[in-house]
This record gives sequence, C-alpha cells and structure tokens, in this order.
Amino acid sequence: MIGRVNHIAIAVPDLEAAARRYREMLGASVSGVQELPEHGVRVVFVETGNTKVELLEPLGDASPIAAFLERNPDGGMHHICYEVADVSAAVRRLIEGGARVLGDGEPKIGAHGLPVVFLHPKDFDGTLIELEEVKPEFGPA
Amino acid sequence: MIGRVNHIAIAVPDLEAAARRYREMLGASVSGVQELPEHGVRVVFVETGNTKVELLEPLGDASPIAAFLERNPDGGMHHICYEVADVSAAVRRLIEGGARVLGDGEPKIGAHGLPVVFLHPKDFDGTLIELEEVKPEFGPA
Repeated sequence: MIGRVNHIAIAVPDLEAAARRYREMLGASVSGVQELPEHGVRVVFVETGNTKVELLEPLGDASPIAAFLERNPDGGMHHICYEVADVSAAVRRLIEGGARVLGDGEPKIGAHGLPVVFLHPKDFDGTLIELEEVKPEFGPA
Repeated sequence: MIGRVNHIAIAVPDLEAAARRYREMLGASVSGVQELPEHGVRVVFVETGNTKVELLEPLGDASPIAAFLERNPDGGMHHICYEVADVSAAVRRLIEGGARVLGDGEPKIGAHGLPVVFLHPKDFDGTLIELEEVKPEFGPA
C-alpha cells in the first residue's frame, strides 16, 4: 500500500534561518519561501535527489504546527508523508485494521493540491503519518 | 554537500508490534529483525522504493535510543540520515560554519558499516542529523 516517501516535514521556529543553515552549512539545494495561508504554513523545500525535506514555519493563528512548536520550541521532525495510489482505499484498510484517521476520516486537499489524510500518531509509534494520493502516471519515476 | 536521504529512523517500544503494523496496516515491505548489539539496537527496514525507514528498538543497557524512549514512551521520529561523499570534509565545513558534531567529532563506523557522524539537534531545529559516507560508485542510482 504505502509507496515512496514523498517528504519529511520538519517544523522550525525561524524559516529563513533554517533555510540558510541547510543551504550554507549542509550545502543543500533549498527552494525559495512559499506561503500557504490556506494550510497555515510557510515552507521551503530541501531537494535531496530521492525525496524532499519540507521546513515548515507556522503562518497565522490556526496553524496546524503551532502547538507542536509550543511543545518543541527548537523545532523538530513533525511528520512523514508516504505516497499511496488510492487514499480512500487506504483509509478503508486502515480503519478495518483499527487505526484512526485524524479529523472526520475524509481525505482533504493537501498542500500539494492532492488528496491527503493524517493517521493518529498513537497508532504508529508516536509518528504522525500523512498519506498522499499520487497517481502513478503523474508520480516521479 | 548532503545528498540522498539514506533513511529515516523511528524509535519504537515494541519492534515486533511495529513491524506488524507497517506490514499489515500500511501494506509496507518490511525486513526481518536484525540485532546490532554493537550499536545497541534491534532494527527492521521498511523499504519505500526511494529510501528506507528504520524502526529501532533499544538493545542492551547502553542503547543510544534508550533515553529518547524514556522521554517518548510511545516512540517517535529519532533522526534523519543524509548521504555525503566525504564525511571528514563535511565535518570540517560544518565546524567552520559553527555546527557541533556529537562525540569527539571523529567519524565512527555506523550500523551500515560506513563512516558516520551525528550533528547536534540544537543546531538544526531540534532534528538529529546523521551523515553517512557513501561512495558514489557503490550508492544506489
């Protein structure tokens, strides 16, 4: 069911400082800043060749990462996103297996414009898992 | 400098239960259990096609993940490992840039039999970063 790691998301308290460290100290390929107000984050993408690391800073009062940063003021690894071919089928299988899907269980359109769900971290060893539906014909090789 | 994400490491309190959840609930390709007593962990590898997720359980009293699991009894994302072509050169650049390398700063032989260092999470937004030296000719395409 789960396929490629689409991205690893890291919540950071200062996006520009974090982007600079990845670019200058780690020599990474880092995108410019994108603001995604409908998702409550500002983001830069670190391209690693085989997947992406997304550095996220809260944007607005209802940011989904604000509480995480209150608990972890230095920042930290926030979630891992796996690609799936059919997110609704994935949700059915997970619920049958006893896992909890966050929210109302219905896929939402995520930050990449594709259907996503998040799974309860208590069901997966304290790890917040995002599943993103990627049509195979549109996915990277 | 940093290249591919070699793996994402997740500390788990019960390796067999975690492996079963990844296999049965997430439909993932999960290896058998390997014991690495010299590294203080038992591990399974989740193959995602583009990178690996390593589920780690402490092994022995001096396990490097024991303290993390005391703070996070449910488990959680522990570190992210990037490939580099020359770990000693990477260390020099990082130290010049003001980053801290854990331990004495000298690369050690890691769990994959290759030279590794770990960077201080306080310098990278609360994220523990491992750098692993992978010779390009031996690395995956």
